[in-house]
Amino acid sequence: MSRGFPTAEYEARLATLQAQMALQDLGALLLTSEADVRYVSGFLTRFWESPSRPWFLIVPAAGRPVAVIPSIGAALMATTWVQDIRTWRAPDLTDDGVGLLNATLDELLGGQGGRVGLPAGQESHLRMPLGDFWRLQAARPSRSFVGDGNLVRRCRAVKSPAEIQKIESACQVASRAFARLEEVVQIGEPQTAVFRNFQRLCLEEGADFVPYVAGGFGPMGYKDVIASATATPIAAGDVVMLDTGLIVDGYFADFDRNVAVRQPAAKCVQEVHARLIEATAVAFDMAKPGLPVSALFEAMDQVITGGDNSADSGRFGHGLGMQLTEWPSIIPDEHTPLEPGMVLTLEPSMATDQAGHILVHEENIVITETGARALSAFAGPVMNVVG
Amino acid sequence: MSRGFPTAEYEARLATLQAQMALQDLGALLLTSEADVRYVSGFLTRFWESPSRPWFLIVPAAGRPVAVIPSIGAALMATTWVQDIRTWRAPDLTDDGVGLLNATLDELLGGQGGRVGLPAGQESHLRMPLGDFWRLQAARPSRSFVGDGNLVRRCRAVKSPAEIQKIESACQVASRAFARLEEVVQIGEPQTAVFRNFQRLCLEEGADFVPYVAGGFGPMGYKDVIASATATPIAAGDVVMLDTGLIVDGYFADFDRNVAVRQPAAKCVQEVHARLIEATAVAFDMAKPGLPVSALFEAMDQVITGGDNSADSGRFGHGLGMQLTEWPSIIPDEHTPLEPGMVLTLEPSMATDQAGHILVHEENIVITETGARALSAFAGPVMNVVG
Repeated sequence: MSRGFPTAEYEARLATLQAQMALQDLGALLLTSEADVRYVSGFLTRFWESPSRPWFLIVPAAGRPVAVIPSIGAALMATTWVQDIRTWRAPDLTDDGVGLLNATLDELLGGQGGRVGLPAGQESHLRMPLGDFWRLQAARPSRSFVGDGNLVRRCRAVKSPAEIQKIESACQVASRAFARLEEVVQIGEPQTAVFRNFQRLCLEEGADFVPYVAGGFGPMGYKDVIASATATPIAAGDVVMLDTGLIVDGYFADFDRNVAVRQPAAKCVQEVHARLIEATAVAFDMAKPGLPVSALFEAMDQVITGGDNSADSGRFGHGLGMQLTEWPSIIPDEHTPLEPGMVLTLEPSMATDQAGHILVHEENIVITETGARALSAFAGPVMNVVG
Repeated sequence: MSRGFPTAEYEARLATLQAQMALQDLGALLLTSEADVRYVSGFLTRFWESPSRPWFLIVPAAGRPVAVIPSIGAALMATTWVQDIRTWRAPDLTDDGVGLLNATLDELLGGQGGRVGLPAGQESHLRMPLGDFWRLQAARPSRSFVGDGNLVRRCRAVKSPAEIQKIESACQVASRAFARLEEVVQIGEPQTAVFRNFQRLCLEEGADFVPYVAGGFGPMGYKDVIASATATPIAAGDVVMLDTGLIVDGYFADFDRNVAVRQPAAKCVQEVHARLIEATAVAFDMAKPGLPVSALFEAMDQVITGGDNSADSGRFGHGLGMQLTEWPSIIPDEHTPLEPGMVLTLEPSMATDQAGHILVHEENIVITETGARALSAFAGPVMNVVG
């Protein structure tokens, strides 16, 4: 897999965005988040870990995107297909790019008015100081800043073949790491070491970064699928769940595995595991273009709860790509039809007892013209025993 | 080092925040970002990698903080000192927590009015959908949502002894990893492998996560300190810079090292390196409570450029803690006086030629009652040769 994308990829993304912008009469789109800026520009860096500086990418109604960014990023942005790069020396306590952004919007919109769209719906954030956004609005009272009608997230949800290849590479890395899980799930090891050693496996297998690891530990499963590791050591009889979000060339894999330590899990826990695998298979088998996302939820929920929609996680999967989780959510209210190129996680969860313990299982798939294709190496119904 | 903090730590943070809130007549503080929510609650998870769900923590004018969060986080939040935890099942396409948040604010503010402070200055973001924030404002026209006067970032900038201990642990991990740099900077290895293998070293030495690695490569240094790795192999004669942001128990180390591959760097590059070390030492020696942050910039700039303030990175260091970079920035305009407990990076950069190549050097320090103390194992003036 070669790194990055050819310019044609960005040209296609831009054309799609601009067609959608026209339908909403947007004179420009203002992007501020890592994924949105990268989607349009190809600007790939871990530097977004630093919250100090804002980064702006403007998509005009026609023509190429314009970057308005701190000078520290000029050299990297110049390696992308973006040609119009305007910089200021940030951080600037007096004006941290707002003046330059305003002037650039004036130029692109042909005056101080115009409608500027911003991603403002679920899954989105405005990654600039709120005070600076208020300043931006106040400086141009005749300009309206409005939600983008979720056009960016909709465009991003349908992946190109080149994007799918990157996600599949990431999934293959994670599948290989999970195949070696017994190397790191060792009796007596503290959870913190298991987390750490699992990340090392992911890196050894080819991950660029491993920004996300969560885990659950306990004989009956776990109450929580987002917890950090504690110093508690792994014990015989535990079920251990490890969930990773790892990155290859800017694209995530996101799935988990449950294993039993030393001895098979309790019968009822094994049954829950098998049920989750079955739910995943049912959703996988039915997934195809045109099917509403909600149908995947309902089918999984039928297997798991008989259809009473009681999962406390709130959803049974989600989109996947440049972010660990993306729109859409697999929930009863999301009736968006599946499209070829959508990459999803199937992530059903199920209670193992009345005390709040659960198991969660997750796989990654892509919707094709005729159905779905597995990106992760699907787990079987029998929970592996390690250690 | 034990994980987490005793409740007294959070009580002290709360008291400081509430005292500052009173000065600004804020009836509540609304926190939405990972670091701000964790600062008050202790809620530690990598789950913030998922942008799908907003998380709210309200600091009332008096009394304990109140969490308004997705139900998927209830179990983890219940392990913190926060007792009042209100949840909704997210994502909810109709109302993703806004109604619950409004009702909770009404209760805490004793009506539909009141002044709610939000971090809105530099380094801050509103981590919730902008559309939902607009809804929050529209639902309570009599309530004002205002900037917090940077009170949160000011409180967070002064670290407690327990916080400093965690940052120091992270720095020790990074120092040990950098001491093994020759294991991973190998001629013929692609940059991507060097990045990956360096992360493995950091994990082996005790990092919980390594969210940030950047690097620079080339005989005369590099044009960029934020770039991702490419497939280009390391060559004899390269200078290699690796910069890491690694985490131990939720706190970052952030520093870099420059090494020459196989042979000493060009004389002029060696001189730049020595100058950067000197600049760092000058700043370290003068740092003490009461000194304005700008004085650190000026002293380093004097060593590097003779005082012409031409560094394109925009700053010569920054705060450090729960985030890779925090307020304050070491820039000419930042006249905030240093205080005991501030943790800073000293990060001078300098041109090596007229073609835009630079070197960057970075160390981590803490301000004490009498001066500064090194947290990273300071590098010497001679650039190490590896491979």
